[in-house]
Amino acid sequence: MAKVLASVLHGAKDLRIEERELPAPGSGEIQVAVQATGLCGSDLHYFNHYRNGDIIVREPLTLGHESAGVVTAVGPDVTDLKVGDHVALEVGQPCESCGLCTEGRYNICKGMTFRSSAKAWPHAQGTLQERVNHPARWSYKLPEDVSLELGALLEPLGVAMHAHDRAKIPENSATVLVLGAGAVGLLTAALSKAQGQKVVIGDINAERVAFATANGFADAGVVVPARRPQEIQEKLAYAREVADLVAKAQIDGKDVGEVTATYECTGVESCMHTAIYSTQPGGKILIIGMGTPIQTLPISAAALKEVDLIGVFRYANTYARAIKLVSSKPAGLPDLKKLITQRFKGLDKINDAFAMAGKVQDEEGNLVLKVLVDTSN
Amino acid sequence: MAKVLASVLHGAKDLRIEERELPAPGSGEIQVAVQATGLCGSDLHYFNHYRNGDIIVREPLTLGHESAGVVTAVGPDVTDLKVGDHVALEVGQPCESCGLCTEGRYNICKGMTFRSSAKAWPHAQGTLQERVNHPARWSYKLPEDVSLELGALLEPLGVAMHAHDRAKIPENSATVLVLGAGAVGLLTAALSKAQGQKVVIGDINAERVAFATANGFADAGVVVPARRPQEIQEKLAYAREVADLVAKAQIDGKDVGEVTATYECTGVESCMHTAIYSTQPGGKILIIGMGTPIQTLPISAAALKEVDLIGVFRYANTYARAIKLVSSKPAGLPDLKKLITQRFKGLDKINDAFAMAGKVQDEEGNLVLKVLVDTSN
Amino acid sequence: MAKVLASVLHGAKDLRIEERELPAPGSGEIQVAVQATGLCGSDLHYFNHYRNGDIIVREPLTLGHESAGVVTAVGPDVTDLKVGDHVALEVGQPCESCGLCTEGRYNICKGMTFRSSAKAWPHAQGTLQERVNHPARWSYKLPEDVSLELGALLEPLGVAMHAHDRAKIPENSATVLVLGAGAVGLLTAALSKAQGQKVVIGDINAERVAFATANGFADAGVVVPARRPQEIQEKLAYAREVADLVAKAQIDGKDVGEVTATYECTGVESCMHTAIYSTQPGGKILIIGMGTPIQTLPISAAALKEVDLIGVFRYANTYARAIKLVSSKPAGLPDLKKLITQRFKGLDKINDAFAMAGKVQDEEGNLVLKVLVDTSN
Amino acid sequence: MAKVLASVLHGAKDLRIEERELPAPGSGEIQVAVQATGLCGSDLHYFNHYRNGDIIVREPLTLGHESAGVVTAVGPDVTDLKVGDHVALEVGQPCESCGLCTEGRYNICKGMTFRSSAKAWPHAQGTLQERVNHPARWSYKLPEDVSLELGALLEPLGVAMHAHDRAKIPENSATVLVLGAGAVGLLTAALSKAQGQKVVIGDINAERVAFATANGFADAGVVVPARRPQEIQEKLAYAREVADLVAKAQIDGKDVGEVTATYECTGVESCMHTAIYSTQPGGKILIIGMGTPIQTLPISAAALKEVDLIGVFRYANTYARAIKLVSSKPAGLPDLKKLITQRFKGLDKINDAFAMAGKVQDEEGNLVLKVLVDTSN
Repeated sequence: MAKVLASVLHGAKDLRIEERELPAPGSGEIQVAVQATGLCGSDLHYFNHYRNGDIIVREPLTLGHESAGVVTAVGPDVTDLKVGDHVALEVGQPCESCGLCTEGRYNICKGMTFRSSAKAWPHAQGTLQERVNHPARWSYKLPEDVSLELGALLEPLGVAMHAHDRAKIPENSATVLVLGAGAVGLLTAALSKAQGQKVVIGDINAERVAFATANGFADAGVVVPARRPQEIQEKLAYAREVADLVAKAQIDGKDVGEVTATYECTGVESCMHTAIYSTQPGGKILIIGMGTPIQTLPISAAALKEVDLIGVFRYANTYARAIKLVSSKPAGLPDLKKLITQRFKGLDKINDAFAMAGKVQDEEGNLVLKVLVDTSN
Repeated sequence: MAKVLASVLHGAKDLRIEERELPAPGSGEIQVAVQATGLCGSDLHYFNHYRNGDIIVREPLTLGHESAGVVTAVGPDVTDLKVGDHVALEVGQPCESCGLCTEGRYNICKGMTFRSSAKAWPHAQGTLQERVNHPARWSYKLPEDVSLELGALLEPLGVAMHAHDRAKIPENSATVLVLGAGAVGLLTAALSKAQGQKVVIGDINAERVAFATANGFADAGVVVPARRPQEIQEKLAYAREVADLVAKAQIDGKDVGEVTATYECTGVESCMHTAIYSTQPGGKILIIGMGTPIQTLPISAAALKEVDLIGVFRYANTYARAIKLVSSKPAGLPDLKKLITQRFKGLDKINDAFAMAGKVQDEEGNLVLKVLVDTSN
Repeated sequence: MAKVLASVLHGAKDLRIEERELPAPGSGEIQVAVQATGLCGSDLHYFNHYRNGDIIVREPLTLGHESAGVVTAVGPDVTDLKVGDHVALEVGQPCESCGLCTEGRYNICKGMTFRSSAKAWPHAQGTLQERVNHPARWSYKLPEDVSLELGALLEPLGVAMHAHDRAKIPENSATVLVLGAGAVGLLTAALSKAQGQKVVIGDINAERVAFATANGFADAGVVVPARRPQEIQEKLAYAREVADLVAKAQIDGKDVGEVTATYECTGVESCMHTAIYSTQPGGKILIIGMGTPIQTLPISAAALKEVDLIGVFRYANTYARAIKLVSSKPAGLPDLKKLITQRFKGLDKINDAFAMAGKVQDEEGNLVLKVLVDTSN
Repeated sequence: MAKVLASVLHGAKDLRIEERELPAPGSGEIQVAVQATGLCGSDLHYFNHYRNGDIIVREPLTLGHESAGVVTAVGPDVTDLKVGDHVALEVGQPCESCGLCTEGRYNICKGMTFRSSAKAWPHAQGTLQERVNHPARWSYKLPEDVSLELGALLEPLGVAMHAHDRAKIPENSATVLVLGAGAVGLLTAALSKAQGQKVVIGDINAERVAFATANGFADAGVVVPARRPQEIQEKLAYAREVADLVAKAQIDGKDVGEVTATYECTGVESCMHTAIYSTQPGGKILIIGMGTPIQTLPISAAALKEVDLIGVFRYANTYARAIKLVSSKPAGLPDLKKLITQRFKGLDKINDAFAMAGKVQDEEGNLVLKVLVDTSN
């Protein structure tokens, strides 16, 4: 039984460094020094509010679930990993026996426990600590050409990949719309680019849009005018205006027009409106962004043209494929490392890291897209 | 050039019998004496309001699009139909050259003209007349064991079949929920029964629910309490209550629980709420009912469990299969003729027929599910 | 540690009753008194040849994998089953961690161990013994209306259901062809009937064909003329002749014509030929039967009409659905109990049971479709 | 009525230049000066043998079906094309009314007539003439950045795209195998590259393999040893040897191992064997190559690992997407113009062109991949 330091949330913005006991890894487990963890919007919500939407924290909670690290010990019956291996951690553990699990849709298993989430009881503790024990079966060895930092990106990349899995749009001749140029939106766009598709990206932040188009994540960008209409008809008029900007965006000297699919990564109601207006008959809208849980939608406008609204919750079966993709670097894939915009080393910097994750730009004027923390000692 | 009588709508509730000239059928066309036409909700809307939702009638319009009849003449180049044949008419004509058409999704072709709809200009005139000319290519010969009345039912059955096509739920072990026990809801339920699935049906009208369960269209019924909560939270509470009734409905002595798919055939917002709460993770909601075009929905509740919202607009490629199905009478298929609840013979009865179609029950206490008119002379 | 009696194969036709030690059920395990086991073609192959195709038995092997029984003890951590419960056993255990497993295709997991098969080393011992320990996670509680005998049928029914899963033919208006009227062929046909489809079944044995049509497993039957042409062109001519018999079979007074899908359950080369000729353009052939591993096929005839050849290996995710189906008895489903044609009680009758399983008819003239053995004491 | 010169095949290697009458384009038709036509393997078969497989030519036949040209006249009712437009011609005309047509699978329509094929009667004459009349509805306007030569390539590209449609492998992390490095194989590989996938290509011709890997069509190449074993077991041993070469091919410093899908573009039996051995469990084999119509296959080896054999016949719904793809030049797409290796100008060079198309290399040592002819005057 060793001692490790962990960051533990005790209340809104009350994040403490505490010593915990860590047993030796059990059967089928490995012990990992957590060298790279990305901070996610849900981490930030818990940090700021000690809750995440309807989910209220009921016991001190270690955050962090986008993690990679180095194996420091292996438990009994672990045969395919050894000390020193670099691994990415898939931190959700489904029940592995319900119908959804055996059918491969374990992401929506009702028995899922997910590190850093307060949904299950007791809470599954997150990875923002020096070391954790984790099942070898949910740990993925990183090849030499995939860094630990990229390893930490595999989690949000998994969300993007699962969105693509659900979209099932194999055509490389398709043009897609991505709404939201944050980390998940950019990763979703990156996968479309890797697939040979054209991408138009929209965001209210002009710098994010510029980042996307300048770095090969998108072929065209739309800076969405920041308005907040109150009445539904005004809202819809606003969305039609944005959809018109999308339609008139230029790719290869031509109007984008309607898109085959829209990846909605903001959770904002007006973006759902735009998605409905921008998507062509028979197309698809992928609902990726977590945001306003109850939305007023022009649902007939979608249904009458058979534009389907498809939910995307986390990911399933993505880690191995994502590692292969990142390692193989297809021609269209932009440089994902550019998404890692700020880095913090040491558990004592964890509050700084959370402060940074809440900003749009850092003090040097750099965008804040993905903040990484190294909490190993 | 012959003369035929047609019913023509000149304004709200202003339906007149007029004489029209009907040329001999052109190349590839047949002439059909229209012996059976079902009245549809959209016909009734036009009749009552001279509009249908946003679509305003701009010239006198003959209604009717659920029709079957007898071939009275054939034009040049018609080889597979002859005088005396019984045919069902598919009255929507897509452009047949756009991508959606060539890919088989002609129902959402932007160039579609659809008889009795005022969407295209000039309006495509409907079938509530003595005779019409129609392309042989969109006319389907009825075998002896499929009556003209069943032929008229093939149109709403096509909607139900297209909903099933989009749902792609092959498992005969599935339990599905149908919301709305009108003609389309009952036909959707009938197809589930024909496929060996269990059906729970919900409607605010107890007689309709009783009809469904008594006649083999559903295994269990839920009479939805008729309330009209105003606030969204009350609305959602109401929907959860209805979903609870669905979950506790009994089939084979067991609770229904969550369903694999929900066929929403009402267009009512609270039914969409119920659909979202009643459908199991990974399930599907088919949006069939035309109703409130803008709805306030608990969209995250759907997305987080990956319940997809799938639009269903009319039908494509259903007539031949529907004829084969009706003719082959699989063991689980209930008797579709029972849906035809009132019949009117003669164009002079057309106003009576529309009056009937607007009722829930006729004067003898029979349900009004599908009103048929024979407008041939 | 208790003693149980088991049947153990030591060589071709050398099946001995031996005493084995059975430990108490371990963590997550249950102990089951095996009251019903169906004998399968592969069991019979092992029994007769001490091998199955290329797979050679390397240590004494207990056969049996289509089993149901009564729980006699539960190990630690078993929460959803208790002593006295009736259960069906899914006897294949995949690795549960490879990509195919997490994607839901565990039936083709390379790490699969399957009771009664000599493929893995050490061999996974089968169920033809008094009692076995089995993971609760792969044991399925039978409701009261599903007997243990039907529980034993769930295994071959799973093969049929998996074939249907892979065929993905939701249309209840489809007509399908089943080649081979043995247990798996009849179960495949039964599922098509439960789905409202029309079935034509073919077999060289007229009694089997008659059984299928007389008992609601098929709508039409073709007794395939038993010839054994040697040259490929003669073989293909023979297959075209059989395909012609299929096309001219009568259902509802009409020619069957080409079928939407063919379920090939014999493994015989000429049946694959017939399948290719009988299936309509764009249709599918499901390769279910294990037989001649190398076949000479008119492959262009399939490819040019885009008839796909789809492999079916065992099953995945079928038990829960199969139980629900058998329990819910959809209108089209024939009585599956009729497939159980001979029963043997007691391990001492095991050699008699194998002798029976090798026959086409028993001494009373009954067909031999599925032989069941109760090996509990 | 104008006079045009056409090349007309009167017998094996008896290709004559003849004058034909060409009427003004009819309703819905355009007249096109054929400036670029690729010669295809089927053209060459007809040229050499006056037949193609089982299809025997019954009247003088103009070959050519991979064509683009310039509009020289438009008939009545043509609204979207005008004189001077560059167009690619889709030369197959389906019936447009059968179920397969309306479902979007018009390529396998039984009523298809296809220019330059002798299957339908009278034969549909091909495009190797000065000018042809063609339906505007099956003519696709080329944007400025797509040359007429690329326009001619759209036909074989359509075959490749249709193979990808049928394969439905959206994952850009997949590795695929292409067997056959001729025009269709290279185009199939190009589409995989455009989709971000890794490609290993195999051919018996080392120069073709080198061409593929040197020009971005493939990531690794296998020169297949040219042997012709006679016995089936030797054939299979040979195929396993080739599969082993594939598995050990290096991409990004790693063994290829098993592939997700194999695109078989040779029609050679031993390549089907290799495809079966090289494809991973749950993978797919696309049968694209036309070759030996009857093959002896280790079919169980495919079925037991659920590797499906999927036919690919011509293409449907590909032209518009192919134009968009070629115009949009995704990052991974290699330069397709490099496939055009020899050009001939003028009908009088047509015999030279056919002679060239029959060679593997031209006199200057260049590979012969796609020979183009300009038959306009």
